[in-house]
Amino acid sequence: MDFKITPIKPAEVRELLKLIRELAKFEKLEHEMKATPASLRRALFGPRAVAGALLARSGGRPVGYALYFSTFSSFTGRQGVWLDDLYVCPEFRGHGIGRALIEAVARVAAKRKCGRFEWIALDWNQRALDFYKSLGAKTLDEWVLIRMAGPGLRKLAARKRRPKR
Amino acid sequence: MDFKITPIKPAEVRELLKLIRELAKFEKLEHEMKATPASLRRALFGPRAVAGALLARSGGRPVGYALYFSTFSSFTGRQGVWLDDLYVCPEFRGHGIGRALIEAVARVAAKRKCGRFEWIALDWNQRALDFYKSLGAKTLDEWVLIRMAGPGLRKLAARKRRPKR
Repeated sequence: MDFKITPIKPAEVRELLKLIRELAKFEKLEHEMKATPASLRRALFGPRAVAGALLARSGGRPVGYALYFSTFSSFTGRQGVWLDDLYVCPEFRGHGIGRALIEAVARVAAKRKCGRFEWIALDWNQRALDFYKSLGAKTLDEWVLIRMAGPGLRKLAARKRRPKR
Repeated sequence: MDFKITPIKPAEVRELLKLIRELAKFEKLEHEMKATPASLRRALFGPRAVAGALLARSGGRPVGYALYFSTFSSFTGRQGVWLDDLYVCPEFRGHGIGRALIEAVARVAAKRKCGRFEWIALDWNQRALDFYKSLGAKTLDEWVLIRMAGPGLRKLAARKRRPKR
């Protein structure tokens, strides 16, 4: 199967959003899906762009994407790349598109002299875990992901420090 | 115990690095410790600064720090804050310094209208896990952290795509 991977252009944001929605559905996380064309455009192309994305096309049709942003590690003292999403439409899997996307993001990381290329995967997505292992990626089992969001985050931010004497 | 938390200043980078080294030792990750005053200065104060840090002092002495950077979520369409490190010197624990540091980073996240405030913790660091739980943070147990670094990352980036017909 023939396919092409290119950095996303502003005119392709709506196509990207459609793929993001498909991924959210697959991950059973549709309730988290709040992104809009405007918020994506700002993140990817705004004056303070924070993310990059690559789009895979086959026969002109968008069939997959990778979205990433920069991280920093105080231990390595270097920037890293975090792969927020990697997605290939189900009917286009098994043709090396996912591998080509992840290799393209790895090239971004190498070009930026990044020390690490990281992401998270759902523990029930065995196909993805096997694929990442086949790339030589390491699963860091002793680390636990922790998150604050919504009202909990606002509450923490609003806490007043009690002066101690 | 009296303490003060302030955004780090360029003149404090060496003090920060000393605390980062202490954390690396505590986490049994000293082998990852490669940061230098120059790499930290670049990340925190360079023209393309990627990280922020807060320093806690008690009686003038640096006793803890928090280091963070921005993330992005394609699902929420919003930026987030990632807490790379949170550290309080052992002899200064139990006085609310860690809580004050994490609340200060949460205020940064709230100010930036971030959707998420995230970090990772070692699964054997029960004291830290209990502390995060007490803040109202959620442990996302179904997510697995995956990493490529060093030669593996360079190899992935160097792979040539085989044209498929």
